[in-house]
Amino acid sequence: MDYKGRQTRLQTALEPSRLDGLLITHLPNIRYLCGFSGSAGAILISESKSVFFTDGRYKEQAQVEVQGSRIVVARKPPLSAAAEWLVANAKKLGAKTLGIEAEHLSVAERSRLAKALPSGLRLREAPPLVEQARMRKDAEEIERLRAAVLLGASLFEVALTAIRPGVKETEVAAELEYAARRAGADGMSFDTIIASGARSARPHGRASEAAIPANGFVVCDFGVILAGYCSDMTRTVHVGQPDEETQRVYAAVRDAQQAALETVGAGVSAGDVDRSARKVLQRKGLGMRFTHSTGHGVGLEIHEAPRLAAGQKDVLQPGMVITIEPGAYLPGVGGVRIEDMVVVTEQGCQILTPTGKELITI
Amino acid sequence: MDYKGRQTRLQTALEPSRLDGLLITHLPNIRYLCGFSGSAGAILISESKSVFFTDGRYKEQAQVEVQGSRIVVARKPPLSAAAEWLVANAKKLGAKTLGIEAEHLSVAERSRLAKALPSGLRLREAPPLVEQARMRKDAEEIERLRAAVLLGASLFEVALTAIRPGVKETEVAAELEYAARRAGADGMSFDTIIASGARSARPHGRASEAAIPANGFVVCDFGVILAGYCSDMTRTVHVGQPDEETQRVYAAVRDAQQAALETVGAGVSAGDVDRSARKVLQRKGLGMRFTHSTGHGVGLEIHEAPRLAAGQKDVLQPGMVITIEPGAYLPGVGGVRIEDMVVVTEQGCQILTPTGKELITI
Repeated sequence: MDYKGRQTRLQTALEPSRLDGLLITHLPNIRYLCGFSGSAGAILISESKSVFFTDGRYKEQAQVEVQGSRIVVARKPPLSAAAEWLVANAKKLGAKTLGIEAEHLSVAERSRLAKALPSGLRLREAPPLVEQARMRKDAEEIERLRAAVLLGASLFEVALTAIRPGVKETEVAAELEYAARRAGADGMSFDTIIASGARSARPHGRASEAAIPANGFVVCDFGVILAGYCSDMTRTVHVGQPDEETQRVYAAVRDAQQAALETVGAGVSAGDVDRSARKVLQRKGLGMRFTHSTGHGVGLEIHEAPRLAAGQKDVLQPGMVITIEPGAYLPGVGGVRIEDMVVVTEQGCQILTPTGKELITI
Repeated sequence: MDYKGRQTRLQTALEPSRLDGLLITHLPNIRYLCGFSGSAGAILISESKSVFFTDGRYKEQAQVEVQGSRIVVARKPPLSAAAEWLVANAKKLGAKTLGIEAEHLSVAERSRLAKALPSGLRLREAPPLVEQARMRKDAEEIERLRAAVLLGASLFEVALTAIRPGVKETEVAAELEYAARRAGADGMSFDTIIASGARSARPHGRASEAAIPANGFVVCDFGVILAGYCSDMTRTVHVGQPDEETQRVYAAVRDAQQAALETVGAGVSAGDVDRSARKVLQRKGLGMRFTHSTGHGVGLEIHEAPRLAAGQKDVLQPGMVITIEPGAYLPGVGGVRIEDMVVVTEQGCQILTPTGKELITI
């Protein structure tokens, strides 16, 4: 990965943001900038310096992973270590304004940091510079995402074998997760959703001890982390013969998803993609049943910028990797969601998820 | 669970903290207070009111899970919904000072909240009232923790079958996690650590693609989440015949763990428990090789208060559930850690982890 280039571009962005330095504490941002994948770290970036802080537990790991930064291993939490380093180096650095990640630093951490800093150095809430850079994936990242998506998609075959009336949702999840690990996944990118029967009307129905009923939808929403990058996909299958209304709801969601996919492209706003899915469902009388947004960015985190929701003005750019996942949920009855991951291109998008979308009956 | 009692006790604690209300945004605190296990929520507690906020995705789940609070389902994030509710109800409530969870609320969330609040209502960083309450587990929580620990411990048998020279660390993790899911776990309580050979010298060596070597330690540190509560245990086994020095290091860690266990009891400080483990390792010339703290609280979160580290003055109380997990790490060679979960009692402690600690050779 081009850690050095990412750090250099960030350094270039400091001055226009009127920052002498930026203290990065959000772990995915740290991983993006220097490769560190542990759970305790901070990076301080100034125009000319890059220093990474961790504690004794991660000494060896930091030496193996971290690129482009000087490594400081301290006997205190990374944030305190960074403050201490700033006290010792403030004069040499000549820094007056230090940016913090306001979305990620807690109110208490900010207070402790402010107290520990040398006088003359003040904190400022920085714009989300690293998140903005992370939105557009480079070729190496897209390759990793593609590999994660393919591994993730292979799990759907496992789900199809495991889903049977009477089997617990958690048992289906167990089979998926086992197959993921055996195939080399670091883990799942979020709690596996296997929501069957009336539970499928819960958009976030994590696999429960409930047994799959003899008739009804099963929403399967799952993803893996592979080499740090997340996958995310949803398919909805039907156990037993679907009646006409059931087929109509499925077809409506599928059409909505297709419409959204056809809207995606460089220069289109995130809100426009959301609207195109919503319009199809509204036309089918299901507008009120689509209770969440259409998608989100995916990368080192399962939910990243941009958000594809009503009214969002963010403009899609080539290299963004996003989900397209409309759904419709009928309380007490059941729900349907269909989700692919795609790369935004100049002309439209490339769908990464290879799995078909016809309604599968089990 | 006694959600009503927990809320009532929190309401009683508001006035002494000079707060008219407390806005709780940390999800485990929310679950502790009202039972909600989803990923978007906030609770507002005043002396006489309890209101829970979530979004449309969690409507059904909130209706099933939430106890002791009025439920508000909004079309905006819970924090914004809470602010809006406060604007509408501020006069009736007569509240002037609203506590926030400074350790959990981000700097940006605080700014947005402050802007959205009615004038005359000011924010104050509240003491960690819910975390303090959560430290001492009630009988029902201890039963859940015990069940989680027993399920977790059963996985060690799976590890013993899976660990063989040439097998990948991730394959061992896969077998553990599969067995956990099959047995009804919600998931793992943290990324499974299977660290073999020289990698065992990394205290946080998540299972990697590395193959287990023919000779060396394998640190197995893992836990499950069962009905919301976490387990945490570590055992270290040896592949191949251990030489004398290897056995000496293992025995030293085992003795240190035993010493710490014998120190635990109501009225003892967390720092004293840490010191008793550290003293044993120092006597064996391994003091510098014990690079982390001795333990931590466990409950709805894998890491909770209290922290058992050098100099910590927190006094142990009956009902606290903590880990005791000293270790010794020789860079480039290998490491050992042994960890149990215990309940603090008046007289000492009850060890929840049922697994033996003799050195197992594979």
